[in-house]
Amino acid sequence: MARKRIAIDMDGVMADIVSHYIDWYAKRTGELVPVERLNGMPEPTGFPNGELIREFLHTPGFFRTAPVMPGSQEAVKALMEEYEVFIVSAAVEFPQSLSEKVEWLNEHFPFISWKNMVFCGLKTIVQADYMIDDYDKNLRYFNGERLLFSQPHNANYTEYNRFDNWEQIAAFFAKQAVPLAS
Amino acid sequence: MARKRIAIDMDGVMADIVSHYIDWYAKRTGELVPVERLNGMPEPTGFPNGELIREFLHTPGFFRTAPVMPGSQEAVKALMEEYEVFIVSAAVEFPQSLSEKVEWLNEHFPFISWKNMVFCGLKTIVQADYMIDDYDKNLRYFNGERLLFSQPHNANYTEYNRFDNWEQIAAFFAKQAVPLAS
Repeated sequence: MARKRIAIDMDGVMADIVSHYIDWYAKRTGELVPVERLNGMPEPTGFPNGELIREFLHTPGFFRTAPVMPGSQEAVKALMEEYEVFIVSAAVEFPQSLSEKVEWLNEHFPFISWKNMVFCGLKTIVQADYMIDDYDKNLRYFNGERLLFSQPHNANYTEYNRFDNWEQIAAFFAKQAVPLAS
Repeated sequence: MARKRIAIDMDGVMADIVSHYIDWYAKRTGELVPVERLNGMPEPTGFPNGELIREFLHTPGFFRTAPVMPGSQEAVKALMEEYEVFIVSAAVEFPQSLSEKVEWLNEHFPFISWKNMVFCGLKTIVQADYMIDDYDKNLRYFNGERLLFSQPHNANYTEYNRFDNWEQIAAFFAKQAVPLAS
């Protein structure tokens, strides 16, 4: 029997992209946007100048320098002992980010092989048993078990099992039955 | 009902990577390797100096300048009228190729959205109804209908439905039943 498979998102799940937005925004404008201001707002719209955020997304180096989500390295490494883990990032919209994301993973998650990295557009193509993601547009079409990772933009989602940090994700999987696919 | 989904490989299916190897090899060494020499040989080993082929795979510009497989543009465009088409390339092993492959698709297949592009390692993650590929390692684990695209390296494969060109692929799909997923 094969191991069960977990598809894990990068931005907003493994990479703390919101802190990175706030940091780059402050460096550019001098204005420190409080994270609470972003609650329930679609990603760029919580910032006074959303166009700047869109510009960051296309700027070389932005994704390469994103901070790691606290607790994600230990938790992902532990999950890999019992599950087949794939990193799935909807990154093709930003082609300059693709090699940066591979480098970022190689630096911060050196125990993940290139064989288990996926960069796509729509995540409907993904076949897995669990998906950890911060976006409804990705979780909605997924047939397996859906885990919503809390981020300011999804504060108002009510239809998913919500996890506020990687400790809660680890606790969820610790309670799962024998992790073998049928 | 949703449309049925086809996953289409790039190298050796949409891109004529073998002609490109032969061309680059001739430019570098002055030796024109006849394509017949590559029959049944794992990809780099048919060339007198296989290390050169491995070097090309890591060379910026190699994938960007690959020629288009004859007939692929018309055939893929026609398939998109009745099927959901995803381009799936096992490209993450060569990170420098990722943005090049997006640019190549945008140039030669401008009717394909970034939403339908997938760059991965293992293709076991792919969920589709049909897969068109030139490699056993990709087709073997696929649960849907498998279409082998003929390339010199796969000349000895016997276990798949074989297609020698895009005209044969188009004819296969023309004979399929109503293209709707159940």
